Amino acid sequence: MSRARPTIYDVAKEAGVSKSLVSLVLRNSPSVSARSTKAVNDAINKLGYQPNRAASDLAAKHRNLIAVLIDDYSNPWFIDMLQALSEVLTPQGYRLSVIDSLTAGSDTDPITHALTMRPDGIIIAQDIAEKSLPDNMPPFVVAGTRFTPVDTASSSSKRAVSNDDFLGAKIATEHLISLGHTDIAHINVHSGAGQKRLASYVSTMRDNGLQPILNETPGPATERFGYDTAMELLEENPGITAIFASNDITAIGVLGAARTRGLHVPRELSVVGYDNTPLAQSRLIDLTTIDDNSIGVGRNAALLLLNKLDANNTFADVDHTLVPQLIIRGTSAKPRSD
Amino acid sequence: MSRARPTIYDVAKEAGVSKSLVSLVLRNSPSVSARSTKAVNDAINKLGYQPNRAASDLAAKHRNLIAVLIDDYSNPWFIDMLQALSEVLTPQGYRLSVIDSLTAGSDTDPITHALTMRPDGIIIAQDIAEKSLPDNMPPFVVAGTRFTPVDTASSSSKRAVSNDDFLGAKIATEHLISLGHTDIAHINVHSGAGQKRLASYVSTMRDNGLQPILNETPGPATERFGYDTAMELLEENPGITAIFASNDITAIGVLGAARTRGLHVPRELSVVGYDNTPLAQSRLIDLTTIDDNSIGVGRNAALLLLNKLDANNTFADVDHTLVPQLIIRGTSAKPRSD
Repeated sequence: MSRARPTIYDVAKEAGVSKSLVSLVLRNSPSVSARSTKAVNDAINKLGYQPNRAASDLAAKHRNLIAVLIDDYSNPWFIDMLQALSEVLTPQGYRLSVIDSLTAGSDTDPITHALTMRPDGIIIAQDIAEKSLPDNMPPFVVAGTRFTPVDTASSSSKRAVSNDDFLGAKIATEHLISLGHTDIAHINVHSGAGQKRLASYVSTMRDNGLQPILNETPGPATERFGYDTAMELLEENPGITAIFASNDITAIGVLGAARTRGLHVPRELSVVGYDNTPLAQSRLIDLTTIDDNSIGVGRNAALLLLNKLDANNTFADVDHTLVPQLIIRGTSAKPRSD
Repeated sequence: MSRARPTIYDVAKEAGVSKSLVSLVLRNSPSVSARSTKAVNDAINKLGYQPNRAASDLAAKHRNLIAVLIDDYSNPWFIDMLQALSEVLTPQGYRLSVIDSLTAGSDTDPITHALTMRPDGIIIAQDIAEKSLPDNMPPFVVAGTRFTPVDTASSSSKRAVSNDDFLGAKIATEHLISLGHTDIAHINVHSGAGQKRLASYVSTMRDNGLQPILNETPGPATERFGYDTAMELLEENPGITAIFASNDITAIGVLGAARTRGLHVPRELSVVGYDNTPLAQSRLIDLTTIDDNSIGVGRNAALLLLNKLDANNTFADVDHTLVPQLIIRGTSAKPRSD
């Protein structure tokens, strides 16, 4: 690499001190000994060092970094939310870095991982396994309906932004009922949102005098789990004419199962997802789904975090619960009359 | 939040110094004045502070963080690579954080953003716009075929791990030719890999006496661009019986265009992608594609980075160019004879 301009590392080496110490001198810290301060300033003058953008970021107290925790990159639900977070936070000088539970490292939990990056704030858009959050948490907001210790905190309502998953699942189930379906199965997944959608599906079916049909053990929100579970449910219950999947990625698995079994969608099987992901919007998949307003969730979570980051609280307060909306596309229709 | 255990922030506040200074004292830096050292130690004793995992990470010189730069979360090509990076790096005590070009923040470039997190190393899996890399880059490796300043560096060959995109695109094009297709279109995208695949497609067509058919202006690697471009190409060239898309996500757009135009895949239109993403593997999409061994690219990029991070260079050297493989699925077949 070119070494044209001297770096903060060069200054530290020349002065025989650590980079952190150079940073302290650059911010005129009174806590550095006169001898070390002189050594650093001599090195700066000798090398003609000028702090560049990266170096001053390194030296600055705040690096304006927001860590975003998500579950799984292969589930695209988070893409719109992340874009909305960025649209609100980057104009304020913040940048985002994303951590998922698979790549955070098995030796540690995602929160601890995030803390090692010294973020100014954290967006928790993941189901957290830990019983409690560390006591050195920076300002944080929970985005989406999650299993997380914050649920037990008194401040939980003020920390969480999500869509109304109970209402959304009710709308999805009632959509299929209104089309004339009675044998409507649900595929539920192991997540905070998944369990709320499950409870809503069950109560909506019962309120309409219908028998819930579902997988007994919730699984991961993956295409694979959606496929395998749909294959089992359709094998055990050939009368099923509609499946409401807990989210879009599992619904794509359901559509694959329909293809494998030679069931025409929507003529022989209606499929409804949840999230309105870019994939659901694609012309190929064209999935009927619930728009959980992940753009609004991202925007409001970002504004809420800005409030917590800003002592003066100059950002308007936000809605903490957003209204989901049914998006009817090509995968849902009346059941065959024959 | 509970304040049961005192944090490094509490110590800094109690001692009336910065957290960086407490970190220096925790690592027994000789450069801190006696007065400040005493103030910090008094605060530590008074509060009964014990560095916890996060705090010692904060204080440690190395936080064992690897930044991974990708283009776009909505293009799932990177998922297997990221998983492979994690499988190699996390057992070594490293953790990963991902930055994409959309969310890094418009005010800055992804490299500068990554540097603000003070990573121990960087995996560049993104086309970098900057003319040159900062002079304070930590050890880094380029994963995949990229537009990046490193290409001009003498060390480039030793820094890059990718599949052979030229060979992969040749295999994809020859697969369609061998099935009997002659009117084979290509959708090319603006990326380092995209331009190599384009060049290979064109030369393979010409070597077989066939006329290349393609979009004049390369676009983004998105489902939307794949859809729009396929609609245009099929409109202008009704004779097209096969389309080789630059990657899987644009191929999904092509499959959507076929659906819109009522073309049966593969009977009336064969479609081949590139990347062998989880979506290509799904039963629903079942896409013929090129496996660019992104697991191998991730694994070798991680090993190469470990070599650069380890002064003793104890990790085996790796292959820098991996061999792609044709995966034949349900979207490619002989053209209709009629």
